[in-house]
Amino acid sequence: MNVQEESLKLHKEKRGKIEVVGTMPVTNGADLALAYTPGVAEPCLEIAKNKNNAYQYTMKGKTVAVVTNGTAVLGLGNIGPEAGLPVVEGKALLLKKFGNVDAIPISLDSIEPDDIVNTIKNIAPGFGGIHLEDIKAPECFYIEDKLKELLDIPVYHDDQHGTAIAVLAGLYNALKLVKKNIGEVEVVINGSGASGIATAKLLMYAGVKNIVLCDINGALVKGDDTLNEAQKKMVEITNRGLEKGTLADVIKNKDVFIGVSDGNVLTKEMVKTMNKDSIVFALANPTPEIMPSEAKAGGARVIATGRSDFPNQINNVLVFPGMFNGVLKVRAKDICDDMKIAAAKGIAGLIKDSELNENHIVPSVFDGGVCEAVSKAVVDTAQELGLVRENLM
Amino acid sequence: MNVQEESLKLHKEKRGKIEVVGTMPVTNGADLALAYTPGVAEPCLEIAKNKNNAYQYTMKGKTVAVVTNGTAVLGLGNIGPEAGLPVVEGKALLLKKFGNVDAIPISLDSIEPDDIVNTIKNIAPGFGGIHLEDIKAPECFYIEDKLKELLDIPVYHDDQHGTAIAVLAGLYNALKLVKKNIGEVEVVINGSGASGIATAKLLMYAGVKNIVLCDINGALVKGDDTLNEAQKKMVEITNRGLEKGTLADVIKNKDVFIGVSDGNVLTKEMVKTMNKDSIVFALANPTPEIMPSEAKAGGARVIATGRSDFPNQINNVLVFPGMFNGVLKVRAKDICDDMKIAAAKGIAGLIKDSELNENHIVPSVFDGGVCEAVSKAVVDTAQELGLVRENLM
Repeated sequence: MNVQEESLKLHKEKRGKIEVVGTMPVTNGADLALAYTPGVAEPCLEIAKNKNNAYQYTMKGKTVAVVTNGTAVLGLGNIGPEAGLPVVEGKALLLKKFGNVDAIPISLDSIEPDDIVNTIKNIAPGFGGIHLEDIKAPECFYIEDKLKELLDIPVYHDDQHGTAIAVLAGLYNALKLVKKNIGEVEVVINGSGASGIATAKLLMYAGVKNIVLCDINGALVKGDDTLNEAQKKMVEITNRGLEKGTLADVIKNKDVFIGVSDGNVLTKEMVKTMNKDSIVFALANPTPEIMPSEAKAGGARVIATGRSDFPNQINNVLVFPGMFNGVLKVRAKDICDDMKIAAAKGIAGLIKDSELNENHIVPSVFDGGVCEAVSKAVVDTAQELGLVRENLM
Repeated sequence: MNVQEESLKLHKEKRGKIEVVGTMPVTNGADLALAYTPGVAEPCLEIAKNKNNAYQYTMKGKTVAVVTNGTAVLGLGNIGPEAGLPVVEGKALLLKKFGNVDAIPISLDSIEPDDIVNTIKNIAPGFGGIHLEDIKAPECFYIEDKLKELLDIPVYHDDQHGTAIAVLAGLYNALKLVKKNIGEVEVVINGSGASGIATAKLLMYAGVKNIVLCDINGALVKGDDTLNEAQKKMVEITNRGLEKGTLADVIKNKDVFIGVSDGNVLTKEMVKTMNKDSIVFALANPTPEIMPSEAKAGGARVIATGRSDFPNQINNVLVFPGMFNGVLKVRAKDICDDMKIAAAKGIAGLIKDSELNENHIVPSVFDGGVCEAVSKAVVDTAQELGLVRENLM
């Protein structure tokens, strides 16, 4: 049986990837009196006094909603809310396994941004955080921004920030290896959807001065009316040299290539035009923008992909379990950019200098310690910045 | 420690009453390849072909949403969505324990009926059924009706139908004891909210010819402009004798009293005015409309309450776990009145004639067999009526 057949068999046999189980015994009337009537009235009344008491007496404090609408599922595109369910269940499985976070998969029958915002706002009382997943760009930006305004719990679009943080973690260690300064490298990002834009923003917040964002038509430049609103905002702060042309044109003399686009769009010849000691993160799945052997042949010094069968797998799973573990621990009200930077540093810091080399710039999620490092970084930052919910530690 | 203190301690210690756990191993890259990328694409693609395949490859086929907005919580009233969480978590606990149904508590930050309908419609793709809970009347009627129109999965407001079915189950056996025919008894129902109205409807569907509904102001009569829309519909089909006055006035010469109202509203003297071999179901919690000893002294022959410390506890927990177990088993599209009648007969039928007596008209949920009986009744009826989802058994 191949992976595809085995996956179908397993999903059918297990009836999905998560299960709901009780935490309290219900074996007799006395149990029922505590968990249900009349005992259940007490936690209700305590929470009616102060809604933050829900963190103490319900699952809110350990639970997030993983929400999609199935409009940008994996590389499959807009396949609808039912078809998006296996992915959000998968995220819930990983949140529990690696982050000890209870996660509820929710797949929305809606494609209208304000309707999606309102629906998520409405279901939020039971959750300590909202993990957005596989919602297409540019709607995902508006949806996340609006929810962050409306809600007092963390909202986090994994396709954006999970990718951005994992990339930054890898970049910190790659730069250490090639002895270049983050403030001096020239970066090109191929892919201008959710993850490309979020990665560009986070890298700039981390100190990168110039980034050229590309899409399938080449470099995004100020003044192009065909760009969407999110891209228009980005060209105000990126591509300061107003570089035009295809990826092949603008990759010349760059230090870092980050691909969050499609397979096979980068060639050995293009890599050859990059600066010495170039860094190539070819993260398209399952086929990377360039195969590692080709990138190497083109002169790249540090190469990462999204795949588990090559060295340096840069994957969101390094980030989101620890991120939500951390924010739930302090009942954070928000996830801010400083927490993202801290998370990236936390991941990068797991590779000791003595172990750092071209084939080992990020840890494996199975190494252990990844969730703990991210969580600690997030908790420390939330506490420094006062994003912790008061009186309820 | 009393029940109140113990309940608070337990809720805090357990961090809520349910937990999400994984069903698949995630111990190495091979596991990850099946549950997550790239394997997860297969079930996504199968469901994209036919959304009903979600019943096979995701948790949809074993999972319901338990949805409240906290507007009519227990006897506590409108205490808000966060404070409603312990109740919906409790229902989820009982659905799993007694019905082997995975249930997700959802508490909505909305009091506007169309907004609630739209939100539940939006989150429905991941669920095999919707269990509505503690939503105030009369909005609950509109919300349920609209959702039944919009969705192709069962929608069930427990405060209405759970009560109605449990009452009917008890009534079947009480009538057997007193040897009265359901088509000939005169019934008064005190309480004209969600459960009173739903009970009246179901009893009439089961054959009761005349029912007088009362609220705190006495009998509901046709022509009263102060009634809400749901009550106005009810006076078209109930109280055919246009009886007016207080509960004390209209209870005279009735065979059955069903209280879903407030404590201590029925007196021994009122019971004395009922017909011989009267039946008194005093279901207000925690204080019944009349204490069993008083009802007895008034001449009632069969007495039931909602409490576990008196004989004949009539409680929704007899119904909802088996109801959802059944509808999920056949992937039913709807819950219809015939399924409710069948469920009531299923529960009543668990008491053998040899065991039937004034103090034993309904089983205890701890007796075992209750969920199975309800589930079988629901499954058989769904199959007879063609409410089973095609090709997917």
